Amino acid sequence: MRKTKPIRIVAMGKYLPQAVSSAALEEKYELPKGWAMKYSGVENRHIITTEYNGLMGAKAAQQALEKAQLTLADIDMVISGNGTYDYPIPNQASIIKALLDEKNQYPVPAIDIDSTCLSFVTALDMAAHLLNGENYKNILIVSTEIASKGINPANWETLTLFGDGAAAAIVSYDESADSCYFKGQQFTYSEGTHLTIIEGGGNKNFFKDHPYDPELHSFKMQGKQLLRLTKQKLPEFIEKFFEDTSYTLNTIDAIVPHQASKLGLSLFTKRYQLKPGTVKETLRKYGNCIAASIPLTLLDAIEAGSIQRGDICFLAGTSAGFSMGGVLIRY
Amino acid sequence: MRKTKPIRIVAMGKYLPQAVSSAALEEKYELPKGWAMKYSGVENRHIITTEYNGLMGAKAAQQALEKAQLTLADIDMVISGNGTYDYPIPNQASIIKALLDEKNQYPVPAIDIDSTCLSFVTALDMAAHLLNGENYKNILIVSTEIASKGINPANWETLTLFGDGAAAAIVSYDESADSCYFKGQQFTYSEGTHLTIIEGGGNKNFFKDHPYDPELHSFKMQGKQLLRLTKQKLPEFIEKFFEDTSYTLNTIDAIVPHQASKLGLSLFTKRYQLKPGTVKETLRKYGNCIAASIPLTLLDAIEAGSIQRGDICFLAGTSAGFSMGGVLIRY
Repeated sequence: MRKTKPIRIVAMGKYLPQAVSSAALEEKYELPKGWAMKYSGVENRHIITTEYNGLMGAKAAQQALEKAQLTLADIDMVISGNGTYDYPIPNQASIIKALLDEKNQYPVPAIDIDSTCLSFVTALDMAAHLLNGENYKNILIVSTEIASKGINPANWETLTLFGDGAAAAIVSYDESADSCYFKGQQFTYSEGTHLTIIEGGGNKNFFKDHPYDPELHSFKMQGKQLLRLTKQKLPEFIEKFFEDTSYTLNTIDAIVPHQASKLGLSLFTKRYQLKPGTVKETLRKYGNCIAASIPLTLLDAIEAGSIQRGDICFLAGTSAGFSMGGVLIRY
Repeated sequence: MRKTKPIRIVAMGKYLPQAVSSAALEEKYELPKGWAMKYSGVENRHIITTEYNGLMGAKAAQQALEKAQLTLADIDMVISGNGTYDYPIPNQASIIKALLDEKNQYPVPAIDIDSTCLSFVTALDMAAHLLNGENYKNILIVSTEIASKGINPANWETLTLFGDGAAAAIVSYDESADSCYFKGQQFTYSEGTHLTIIEGGGNKNFFKDHPYDPELHSFKMQGKQLLRLTKQKLPEFIEKFFEDTSYTLNTIDAIVPHQASKLGLSLFTKRYQLKPGTVKETLRKYGNCIAASIPLTLLDAIEAGSIQRGDICFLAGTSAGFSMGGVLIRY
């Protein structure tokens, strides 16, 4: 068994822009009534009006700081774990940090970690490795995502599935608490690298040579192939993840999965005969918020009381890359 | 004093696209002869023709693997440390990994770390925290950058300063070697967040609403303000970095700085009365290659014999954000 580490999520925050119901979306884009709920499982999502990644992230972060009764003075690193961003340069964490109170008083390092939808999970894993109670006591992780810009309205599947939003967590080294980190692990299956992609907007199809085209500059996923690959690799991932722990999917208290899709979410429950309520869901109310989905879902479950201190929680999901990854903690 | 960790850079690799001399660049863009060398200190840089970030990164990585006599089977994580990228989604590390030999046999996790020009340094620092000789024995770090796409030819300063290129390093946990990691530290000074930026191409000035414009979609730096901020913060950074080590800038063997600019490079030497040869430079031959500059310069110094096993090396620099950061190792 691996040694545990006294890591604790001490507080979380969130920011959600304006709510947009599926009924409103269907009307706006002339979709059949009920299409979004039926095929994507999404009843409501939030979509930015004037917000940007940095602003939403900073609001979520500030809320987490207030709840923890901490300020930037107490934070040893700001990690932004996102798939989307305000600017190609500088990194998103610097933009978020520059919007926090007392930003100029404390030169807290600001770095980005990107494993697309798993970015929060990877950031949490990295934070758990860094935190030692000495030079790293508290780390602020922020996942702030704007999916709505990279959506092609002609693609109903992604149009109805995705949402915008931000969540933040303060993770601390705390030997006095019962909370702990058990392990984190990720697998990147290169067979699926091109199954989820935004083809334009980077150096490969640079915007100078490729003017805006909703096909090229929007998120595309080959849903069927992705689901097939997920089904194929899930047993290996789960087996390898839990083999050096004293838990199984059936003995843990909560699974906080990436809210990838309706079918994706049902995979866990179907395959592993889990107790009802084990798999936490926010897909219906927030849609898929890329890397912000897992922390938003965790925070919702904590606020609803369905995850409590002491609960063994598996934060896990799939991401573009194609990766599967997770972190196991005692909340 | 901090405890050291038995971390060793076992092998490195690089890839450079076609060389473009300053004379050729000056002729092409009708600059006065000698302008580039005089003002940017760059005589030659490399610029892609058909290459892309992933391809250059994979070539550098494959070279490092061959030199180390390792394959992907031996690698526990692929970290891409870049400021530029092929696609907004998926992350760059997944693209690089998918171009390596045996990519489908080994589901090695692929994650990105972005602190712009300091990305390699941050990735090395993170790798040093992860490596433990158990589940993390060898980590492959790749920095692959294409600066040339984000350059406004009307801005002579950036036109002549930047170059493209990639470098990779395999970093291992090795108790039998004399090599070690002492520490890593970064400071992000939010006063300088907007001094270096590419304003367009992210969500803030999305390409749907902002068609390509060399002003908006190119890298801009407020050179004078940046240099002033660097001068102001450098003493604090150096003092805090070395205060819990048994070294000073004057007792270490090598400084491998980010090749930010001619003036930026001279700051170290001028201020700290360093022995000639301590500060390693490749600005003249490669230009500023964003996050690839530090590993390219390290590899060059190793190949030239000016950094040898046992040497105490400080890999450090500035980055958009605005950050200063470094890692201290015994090579």
